[in-house]
Amino acid sequence: MQLGVIGLGRMGQIVVDRCLNAGHDVVAFDLSAEATATAATAGATPAESVEDVCDRLDGSEAGKRLWLMVPAGDPVDATLADLEPHLDADDVVVDGGNSRFHGSVRRAEATDAAYLDCGTSGGPASAEAGFSLMIGGPEWAYEELTPVFDAIATGPDGHDRMGPSGAGHYVKMVHNGVEYALMQAYGEGFELLAEGRYDLDLESVARTWNNGAVIRSWLLELCAEAFREEGSDLGDVADHVAGGSTGTWTVEEALEQEVPVPLIYGALAERFDSRNEGRFSRRLANRLRYGFGRHEVARDSDGE
Amino acid sequence: MQLGVIGLGRMGQIVVDRCLNAGHDVVAFDLSAEATATAATAGATPAESVEDVCDRLDGSEAGKRLWLMVPAGDPVDATLADLEPHLDADDVVVDGGNSRFHGSVRRAEATDAAYLDCGTSGGPASAEAGFSLMIGGPEWAYEELTPVFDAIATGPDGHDRMGPSGAGHYVKMVHNGVEYALMQAYGEGFELLAEGRYDLDLESVARTWNNGAVIRSWLLELCAEAFREEGSDLGDVADHVAGGSTGTWTVEEALEQEVPVPLIYGALAERFDSRNEGRFSRRLANRLRYGFGRHEVARDSDGE
Repeated sequence: MQLGVIGLGRMGQIVVDRCLNAGHDVVAFDLSAEATATAATAGATPAESVEDVCDRLDGSEAGKRLWLMVPAGDPVDATLADLEPHLDADDVVVDGGNSRFHGSVRRAEATDAAYLDCGTSGGPASAEAGFSLMIGGPEWAYEELTPVFDAIATGPDGHDRMGPSGAGHYVKMVHNGVEYALMQAYGEGFELLAEGRYDLDLESVARTWNNGAVIRSWLLELCAEAFREEGSDLGDVADHVAGGSTGTWTVEEALEQEVPVPLIYGALAERFDSRNEGRFSRRLANRLRYGFGRHEVARDSDGE
Repeated sequence: MQLGVIGLGRMGQIVVDRCLNAGHDVVAFDLSAEATATAATAGATPAESVEDVCDRLDGSEAGKRLWLMVPAGDPVDATLADLEPHLDADDVVVDGGNSRFHGSVRRAEATDAAYLDCGTSGGPASAEAGFSLMIGGPEWAYEELTPVFDAIATGPDGHDRMGPSGAGHYVKMVHNGVEYALMQAYGEGFELLAEGRYDLDLESVARTWNNGAVIRSWLLELCAEAFREEGSDLGDVADHVAGGSTGTWTVEEALEQEVPVPLIYGALAERFDSRNEGRFSRRLANRLRYGFGRHEVARDSDGE
C-alpha cells in the first residue's frame, strides 16, 4: 500500500520505518526538512509540502491514504486545512496522535475524507515490538487500512476498531488515565519499601515480582530498569513530574459521566502537587495549628 | 533434595507437584488424609503426622528441609509447635504462606531451626508457569534451599533473598498493597468505558491494550479473560469484594512509616465499601441536605 506520513518526529519516523519494513511505499513530509531527509534515508519518498504529498499519492486509484503524526491540537487542524482542498470521499486520513476525542469527532464531521482517530500506545520504546492502536471511525476505512495497522501495531492483535469516530481516542484517553494510576500505585509501593524497615535492593524486588507475581507488567519492567540504571534510591532523579493532559481529560469525562475515579484523580493530583513550589494548603495548616494550639509557625528561613 | 511439605491445600499441592517434576523427593502431610493421599498419588511419600514427616526426613545428613503451606496465623504457630521438638540448627523451615512479617520475625527468633519467610505470588493460576518467591532469613539457608526455590518459582529469576527475617513477607505485603491499587485502577478505567459514551467490546479493548500498550500486564490479561467469559457487562458477577488483610497491613505499615499511600488506601477503602449494606455517611448526607436545603429525604421503601 502507498501511505503518506505527515509529521516525522520520533513517533512519525517509527511509523515510517515500520511501514517500509512491511513492504509499504511511504511518502513522507515534515515541516523540518531535516526530518523529511531522515525519512528519505530510511527509504521513504520525500515530499516538499502537504500538497506535494497529495500529488505524489494521486497515482493510487483507490484514493489517498494519509497518516498524521503531528502534535495534538492546532497542528492537527492546520495540517487538515492544508489537506482539505486535496481530499475527497475515497481518501482516508488517520490521526495517530494524542488528540482529545471531541476534536476527532469534530474533524471527522468536517472533512470530505473518511477520518480515523487512532490512539497509539507504547511510545518510542516500542519501535521494535510495535504499538497498540485503538481506532475509531468508518468500518470500511478501518478495513482498508488494516495492512498498515498490522505493520505499525504489534501485529493483527495489536489493533482494533473500537467504534465510530472518537472511540479510538476515547479509549486511548482512558488508557492514559489508568496509566497514571498504575504508575502511582507502583510508586507508592516502592516508596514504602524504600522508606520502610528493610534495606532492600529494589531492582531485585522488581525483577522477582516480574517473574510470576500477580503485579507483573511492562511498567514494572521499566521500574526494574530504572533501579538498575539509577540505583535503589533513584540517584538524582527529580521529583517534579511533567504531563497531565490526558489524565485531566479522563477525570473531566468521568465527572461528566458521574463515574467515580478516585485513584485516577489521586494520581493526577499527585502529579500537580509535584509541580508546586510550596502548597498554600500546607502553609494554611501551619498557621491554623498556631491558631488553635499555639504551635510555633514554621516559616521559610528567607522570610518568604 | 528431600523436602517435607506440610499443608496440602491448592497451593501446597502445586508446591509438591513442582518439586516432584524437578526431581526432588517429597514427604507430604496434611491434616486431611484425603489431601495427603492426593500428594501420594502425585508421587510424594505420605506421612501420618508432623512427627512422621520429621522421622522420614531424618535420613538426610545435612538436616531437614521443611516447607509449610498452611493458612497464615494460628495454623503456622500450631505446626511449628508440633515441629519444634524435632528441629535443630541444621534444619531449615520455610513458611511459604501469607504470614504477616511481624509474626515471621518472632517465629524466626523462637525456633532452633533456620527460618525462611517466603512470600509466594501468582496463585493457583501459576501452577504451570511457577511463582514469584520473596524470601527473608539467613543467607546460608536461602542458598541451601535454592534448588527447591528454582523448582517452585518461575526459575532462578523468580526468587531472591530480600534480606533478613521478615523481609520476604514484608515485600509480599507491599506487593499485595500495590495489587489492590492496580486492580482498582483497571476497574476505574473499565467502569468509565462501560458507563461512558461509546458502546465498547471490553474484551477487544483489553486485548488491544495488552498488545503493545503501556498498561499491558498479567492483571490486564485476566481482565480480557473476564470480559471474554462474562461479557462486557460482567453478567451476574457480584459487586461485593472479599479479602483485605494484606492491604490493611500495608496501610498500617505506611502509617507507621509516615509514607503516604493514598491509592493503596483508596483501593482498600473501596473494598470495605463494597461490603457495606448502606453507608452511614451517605444516609447522614441525605439527612443533612434536608437540614440546610429542605431537600426531600430519600428513605428506604421498607422503612428501615
